[in-house]
Amino acid sequence: MSNSNVLYQHGTLALLVPGLLDGTLTMKDLLSHGDTGIGTGEGLDGELIILDGTPYQVDSKGNVNLVDSEFTLPFANSHFADYAEMLEVEDIKRDDLQKQISETAASNNTFYSVKITGTFKNMKTRAVQKSSQPYKSLAETAEKQSIFTKDSVEGTLLSYYSPQLFDGAAVGGFHSHFMSDEHDFGGHILSFESVTGVVSFQQFDSLEQHLPTDNKDYMQHDFSQDNILDDVHNAEG
Amino acid sequence: MSNSNVLYQHGTLALLVPGLLDGTLTMKDLLSHGDTGIGTGEGLDGELIILDGTPYQVDSKGNVNLVDSEFTLPFANSHFADYAEMLEVEDIKRDDLQKQISETAASNNTFYSVKITGTFKNMKTRAVQKSSQPYKSLAETAEKQSIFTKDSVEGTLLSYYSPQLFDGAAVGGFHSHFMSDEHDFGGHILSFESVTGVVSFQQFDSLEQHLPTDNKDYMQHDFSQDNILDDVHNAEG
Repeated sequence: MSNSNVLYQHGTLALLVPGLLDGTLTMKDLLSHGDTGIGTGEGLDGELIILDGTPYQVDSKGNVNLVDSEFTLPFANSHFADYAEMLEVEDIKRDDLQKQISETAASNNTFYSVKITGTFKNMKTRAVQKSSQPYKSLAETAEKQSIFTKDSVEGTLLSYYSPQLFDGAAVGGFHSHFMSDEHDFGGHILSFESVTGVVSFQQFDSLEQHLPTDNKDYMQHDFSQDNILDDVHNAEG
Repeated sequence: MSNSNVLYQHGTLALLVPGLLDGTLTMKDLLSHGDTGIGTGEGLDGELIILDGTPYQVDSKGNVNLVDSEFTLPFANSHFADYAEMLEVEDIKRDDLQKQISETAASNNTFYSVKITGTFKNMKTRAVQKSSQPYKSLAETAEKQSIFTKDSVEGTLLSYYSPQLFDGAAVGGFHSHFMSDEHDFGGHILSFESVTGVVSFQQFDSLEQHLPTDNKDYMQHDFSQDNILDDVHNAEG
């Protein structure tokens, strides 16, 4: 079923916090729910981005790798691309851009995706480093992340917006990954100064939230002991 | 698509709080996502329960009405029944039963449904009273709800359990409606003393969360001003 009104999500942001990082979905399964997406690998193995059906991983050394279909993920989003052009922007600052997208979209109470292709100034990304069992908590992993910067880079920003009501299950607000046109730079976006390019927009009316119910560690975990929102906001900021 | 691993939800618990009560889904559409479910009508028009494909409404006078396919709802759940018998219970108190279900299910971190058929002692239900535009807030409606009691009644309890992480979008914990075998008594369950009967269980691995994106009032509402969790816990308790 190819339904461009649905955002698919496997796992929750919350399960990353205590380090429930088993890969519980294959890339093949994720791609069956979309040709566009973001995620991370088992043990927080880098930052993933799927563009036009091709999944790329930015690992903690900054290398960009193609991801095979048996690669597994604890947390990911995907959807079938059906974007419409929303804005053309010229050297717009990141905050101003987010405000303009938010106002134009008028979709704060539903899920949507934004794709921006263009030239980004002072792009700063991070990639997390894979841990093995016993997995590190999100806070521990965040301490060991690698940070990458580019003064100017052409590429694609892929972002998902989730209503604040779903913060903790999803990332409340925008969650953005990046891939350069040369496929030599990317990751989870920490910041950029400005961008010149084209902003596209796709709104969803449904979230398909899939949970790793076959994973014992997930099913048996007591989430009431975790400080979910503080930890994810510190790590995802 | 009839997938018994999916719990469908239209709307959110949160949108009831400020009174965004337009009916934004027809009963026909809800039934296309399940033969079993619960919900409320436009303007908080009573308490609904769907059993074996038949939707019933308990209105604020306590009458049980059959619901037609064009009836609209602001908030509802449905799923395709595929229950397995979990427990036989005899005169078990409600708290003990919830504890026993919770321990046997070991599914606190995913969505599931419980169906209990049997004889309930001191069943206490409520039904909310329909308001028209401008709709009342959930707190105002809760003040005007009707309460119904039965010393002993045979019937079916239908409950959905949602993980605490989804509280506010869904009802965190159990959300239970009731219908008597005679189809003359029911509603949203406030309490019961004990039950003798059969407990059935069905676990989901996915929540399909559908939002009323065609509804202007919903899309333009500023939820940051609402006291969502306090208000829903007071009203749904």
